[in-house]
Amino acid sequence: MKVGLLIIATEVLDGKITDLNTRFLAEFLRWNHLELGMSLTVKDDPEAIKAALKGLIEANDLIITSGGLGPTKDDITKQTLANFLGKSIVYSEEALNCAAGNYKKYERPYPGKEHGYSYLPEGFVPLNNSTGFAPGLFAKHTDKFIFSAPGVPKEFKSMIEDHLLSLISSKLDKDSFIETLSIRTKKVPEEKIFSEVDPDLWDKLSQFGEVSSLPILFGVDIGVKIKAQTRAELENKRDEVYKIIDNSPVIEHVWHRGLESLEEIIISIANKKNIKFGFAESCTGGLCSHRITNVPGSSVSFLGAVVSYAESVKASVLDVAPKTLEVHGAVSIHTASEMAQGLAQKLKVDIAISVTGFAGPLGGTVENPIGTVCIGTCVRGKTHAEKFRFHGDREQLKNRFAQVALMTLLEKMEEFA
Amino acid sequence: MKVGLLIIATEVLDGKITDLNTRFLAEFLRWNHLELGMSLTVKDDPEAIKAALKGLIEANDLIITSGGLGPTKDDITKQTLANFLGKSIVYSEEALNCAAGNYKKYERPYPGKEHGYSYLPEGFVPLNNSTGFAPGLFAKHTDKFIFSAPGVPKEFKSMIEDHLLSLISSKLDKDSFIETLSIRTKKVPEEKIFSEVDPDLWDKLSQFGEVSSLPILFGVDIGVKIKAQTRAELENKRDEVYKIIDNSPVIEHVWHRGLESLEEIIISIANKKNIKFGFAESCTGGLCSHRITNVPGSSVSFLGAVVSYAESVKASVLDVAPKTLEVHGAVSIHTASEMAQGLAQKLKVDIAISVTGFAGPLGGTVENPIGTVCIGTCVRGKTHAEKFRFHGDREQLKNRFAQVALMTLLEKMEEFA
Repeated sequence: MKVGLLIIATEVLDGKITDLNTRFLAEFLRWNHLELGMSLTVKDDPEAIKAALKGLIEANDLIITSGGLGPTKDDITKQTLANFLGKSIVYSEEALNCAAGNYKKYERPYPGKEHGYSYLPEGFVPLNNSTGFAPGLFAKHTDKFIFSAPGVPKEFKSMIEDHLLSLISSKLDKDSFIETLSIRTKKVPEEKIFSEVDPDLWDKLSQFGEVSSLPILFGVDIGVKIKAQTRAELENKRDEVYKIIDNSPVIEHVWHRGLESLEEIIISIANKKNIKFGFAESCTGGLCSHRITNVPGSSVSFLGAVVSYAESVKASVLDVAPKTLEVHGAVSIHTASEMAQGLAQKLKVDIAISVTGFAGPLGGTVENPIGTVCIGTCVRGKTHAEKFRFHGDREQLKNRFAQVALMTLLEKMEEFA
Repeated sequence: MKVGLLIIATEVLDGKITDLNTRFLAEFLRWNHLELGMSLTVKDDPEAIKAALKGLIEANDLIITSGGLGPTKDDITKQTLANFLGKSIVYSEEALNCAAGNYKKYERPYPGKEHGYSYLPEGFVPLNNSTGFAPGLFAKHTDKFIFSAPGVPKEFKSMIEDHLLSLISSKLDKDSFIETLSIRTKKVPEEKIFSEVDPDLWDKLSQFGEVSSLPILFGVDIGVKIKAQTRAELENKRDEVYKIIDNSPVIEHVWHRGLESLEEIIISIANKKNIKFGFAESCTGGLCSHRITNVPGSSVSFLGAVVSYAESVKASVLDVAPKTLEVHGAVSIHTASEMAQGLAQKLKVDIAISVTGFAGPLGGTVENPIGTVCIGTCVRGKTHAEKFRFHGDREQLKNRFAQVALMTLLEKMEEFA
């Protein structure tokens, strides 16, 4: 089944918001052994939408639209769909019930029959919106499916999760299995991995699926999309791919298999091993803690952090000696060590990780230019610190600094049983 | 000039990464009085790319492609462009020089003539990549422009910034001015603003430009895209739009005009008024600090934060009385007040903002279910706290909690001269 997504959002093409629905839908489809073939973003403009619908319907079996279902005058998806299909807009008791139910949930009175939510293009059924007000839409058009969801990411997500699979189940080929294997490497650039490290790797993996390569911070994610007629065949292919990796020199660079985020892996291990940890963050400004606390269950092992952005806070809260700051500076392995030690003592954690560096655009010294970061560790009372240097702008550097801090945490957790 | 963007990225359609280049390009074009008409994402597949190019070239004057210029075998943009245009791939001394120069910058030897970077589709010129290795490409095809940049956001960005405007300047209509005005409202839902608050507002604004409405946390961003032949006409239209807003009942809900983020507005005011501030974050887990420290110059007024995720940290670092935690619980206005007070004393800040709540998926009580958050403030020693309740999943709640904390900070800064 070929799936095409149409994002109807002037705000995305004006650069005011980032489209998050493509990624959600792509992930959702992948987990359900389906594939997103293309995603097209157009403005809230009837002609642009109609041209896009024409192209998408030609190339796909299922067309999903996002956006344009709200109550304001620029929400034109229903009217444009009706025009495109040569249908009229009709009153729907079912649509009114969907919308009125949602208003009731939030204890707000529904305006009734005259409200836009009570109308649909002829031939469409309304879909209940479990996280917002506007009903979604679904229809079969000739041999194609059209599914329209609101554009707000939360509502788009629940609309897809609540309704999509059951509506298209009649067309799903239950025997077709697809899985993307992800093999994550570190400390090797993309261009070396398939030339110097293992020149045959790409071709060997290609026997079992579609290979892709995505450079990330400190390494490359190698993806292998495998397809099979049966679950057994899929598992067999997966084993073969992993066998190739195990027997390749690339194995020395592999730090994880799977699509979980670094922070999810950390929480899973820390909770299992009963490790308590925390951060003393300077230049990352809370990003390490933010990433960790995005993971449900992080409160079991993450106790907290001190964001010591100002030097005064490094001294007053983390007990870094004023002399250390004066002699070695805030960005030094000495300060990093004392930050980690101070945090470990204050928070009573098994592992304290500290980060102090220059993210720019101002700051930095001749010896320690912008991009320099010191990572300190205090593991069961034993301190250590290392210095790294990266390129990038402020945002990139914050991300890189946080990534190396979390990678360091992951490595330090290996010392625990 | 009509601009279409083609994102060539299997990883985006597999849901492994979010496309950030559409948003960057949209913003870049908007600031330069141009508009992005559409953005299409396809896989690293020659047939999909060719079909997309066909559609995009028909509908646009400038086609920008993102991705597929790297050194691995799935990087196929050049070959597919050549096939699509009926050209061959040729060796280019200029391309070799571009790539070799970048290798030299990172002190790595360039493989030379045999490397893929040294080749281009006939008729294209290479574009120097100031942040990576792969050269970009540019060509005029009949009366259209084709501009190809690498997909890595940093490289895409610098390639556009370094080259685009000068390459297309011959076609730019210098007399055409476009600006999107953004009027940001709070404490009013989208459906009320254009019905109950001011039913004529949409039509009145529409006289001067294209109106859009984007629901955000706690309010709606109203956008008005104005176009003019001269700068004076543009300024005149801008004044007219603002006059309509000033005379509308909606003015009571307007908290900002412009596209800056909440954190940028905060830093700008705090630095101007010389206000020092910090956070005591529990359920937001560092997000308030992370957002603030994304703003260059934040170190002038943001001194730091304590992420007191565990109760023990609330007591040991923020001096919340164990009795308060025991009697009222961690999510209470009492605890929020003491967190703010403790932080203000420890960090010596003018304004301390505390956040304690239940973001889920576990936790919460009958009285204070998931979605409850208490925001504490300590302004020049005076403490206060308020309780709010929101809907959403863990990620949404973290965002909402952080937004209300930052909004509270913005309000408290008004008390300072």
